[in-house]
Amino acid sequence: MEPSQWFVEGYNGSALMIKIRETLFEKKRLQHIQIFETESFGKMLVLDGKIQLTERDEAMYHEMLIHVPLFSIENPEKILIIGGGDGGSVREALKHDPAEVLLIEIDRDVYDACKKFIGIDNGALGDGRVSVLFEDGIDFVRNAKEKFDVIIVDGTDPNPVSGSLVMEEFYENCRRITDIFATQSQSPFVQRNYFTEIIENTKKAFEFCSVYINYVPTYPLGLWSYVLASGGSIKAVEPDYEVLKKRWEERRIETKHYNPEVHVASFALPEWLRKQMGEI
Amino acid sequence: MEPSQWFVEGYNGSALMIKIRETLFEKKRLQHIQIFETESFGKMLVLDGKIQLTERDEAMYHEMLIHVPLFSIENPEKILIIGGGDGGSVREALKHDPAEVLLIEIDRDVYDACKKFIGIDNGALGDGRVSVLFEDGIDFVRNAKEKFDVIIVDGTDPNPVSGSLVMEEFYENCRRITDIFATQSQSPFVQRNYFTEIIENTKKAFEFCSVYINYVPTYPLGLWSYVLASGGSIKAVEPDYEVLKKRWEERRIETKHYNPEVHVASFALPEWLRKQMGEI
Repeated sequence: MEPSQWFVEGYNGSALMIKIRETLFEKKRLQHIQIFETESFGKMLVLDGKIQLTERDEAMYHEMLIHVPLFSIENPEKILIIGGGDGGSVREALKHDPAEVLLIEIDRDVYDACKKFIGIDNGALGDGRVSVLFEDGIDFVRNAKEKFDVIIVDGTDPNPVSGSLVMEEFYENCRRITDIFATQSQSPFVQRNYFTEIIENTKKAFEFCSVYINYVPTYPLGLWSYVLASGGSIKAVEPDYEVLKKRWEERRIETKHYNPEVHVASFALPEWLRKQMGEI
Repeated sequence: MEPSQWFVEGYNGSALMIKIRETLFEKKRLQHIQIFETESFGKMLVLDGKIQLTERDEAMYHEMLIHVPLFSIENPEKILIIGGGDGGSVREALKHDPAEVLLIEIDRDVYDACKKFIGIDNGALGDGRVSVLFEDGIDFVRNAKEKFDVIIVDGTDPNPVSGSLVMEEFYENCRRITDIFATQSQSPFVQRNYFTEIIENTKKAFEFCSVYINYVPTYPLGLWSYVLASGGSIKAVEPDYEVLKKRWEERRIETKHYNPEVHVASFALPEWLRKQMGEI
């Protein structure tokens, strides 16, 4: 194997290698952005050395991040998405036919590069119901006056750019303007510290919090986690299969990975994870 | 990274690297056996270049392979395990307090090396209820006259040594001597051909077949699959949570990964996999 043909992402004693055909884009300003054409995963976005998405498996991540909170509520009309300049989350959110989706992306270079070189938004970023603001999500929620039906955080690994997205103040500001909230929460197997910090801080801000997990092959060792949190009149954190199934049939959403069975199953946590979370 | 310090297992355009501290054992006869001390996964068994187990995540595989079929029946007394000379499957099977467990391992070198250098059987292989025969599982079931409450196949990737373990004749011979059967069935994401062949051939031999999946980080891209099959009076392939929960409480089994919630969840298949299996 020619080392230069492989992209390598390491995680503490292990690493994933992805075979590269071509570098399509590279830029280093706010974050180090790389876009590759890979051998068997289609196009791949890497930020600061970490795989953010590949065309082959991004639906496994974006569908679980978006459809779990959106199927948890009756009528998602006004949706705020923080991060996710690639447009995959916006694409999935639009399938619920909301009145408006606001995307807050801190790094305009990511947005522009993804739109030009990857295009997984399938035109969603140009949809009339979608607005995009290029600013820090932390500042946006701190100053926000309007309320949202749901807020979803599609952030990167905590780093100097996104680090404050896992802090208590951020979650409290989100709680002030929404009753239902979801965030990606890293790999519980490989990135225990980040995972724990996200869970603990969302718990401080929201009355109800549940963790759900899903398989995403190109994320660290293939397991990814999310937090679904809520407050006020909404206790939508325990999935009810019959309700989900009914909404799934009514909304007629096409997916590659998500279905109501997978939604319910994703809340079943293995013993090691329940122990790690202090539940047993 | 010093290349020689890393073990690399490739799968079609991607690869997993595991950092190695030391090679504890190596032998090439029936299969190429390697046992490593790794940086962060404990000891690791590799056969013909493919990771079979690491101490850190083997329970995720062995518990799902064994407890799903054994919790699916009332009283598992007589258990046949084909493959799995490392003893992990026997260790889990003994937790159900059966009368006897018969292990058929084709490669005595694997059995001896695992017992000496890994020891994940925790003494199970020396238990009075356990017998071990070193012969080909294909031949054993072809000639077997006695019946078993359950047969479980803990085979390697199909290769010259284990290849016939995925053939119709083998499953039909198993059906003749058992009403309930489980086998590992490879990665449905990375090894579609093997996966499909296993499903199709078990379906020919057993009246009821279900696929279940689970996360095993050091298996190809982290997702692994299994088939639960049954016939005769047993239709134990659709999990019933209340029944499983009751048996789980009665048998008082300690696990690292398995619980009745995870058992039920593992049968929820994502849309891409249902499509791949021709179900939708």
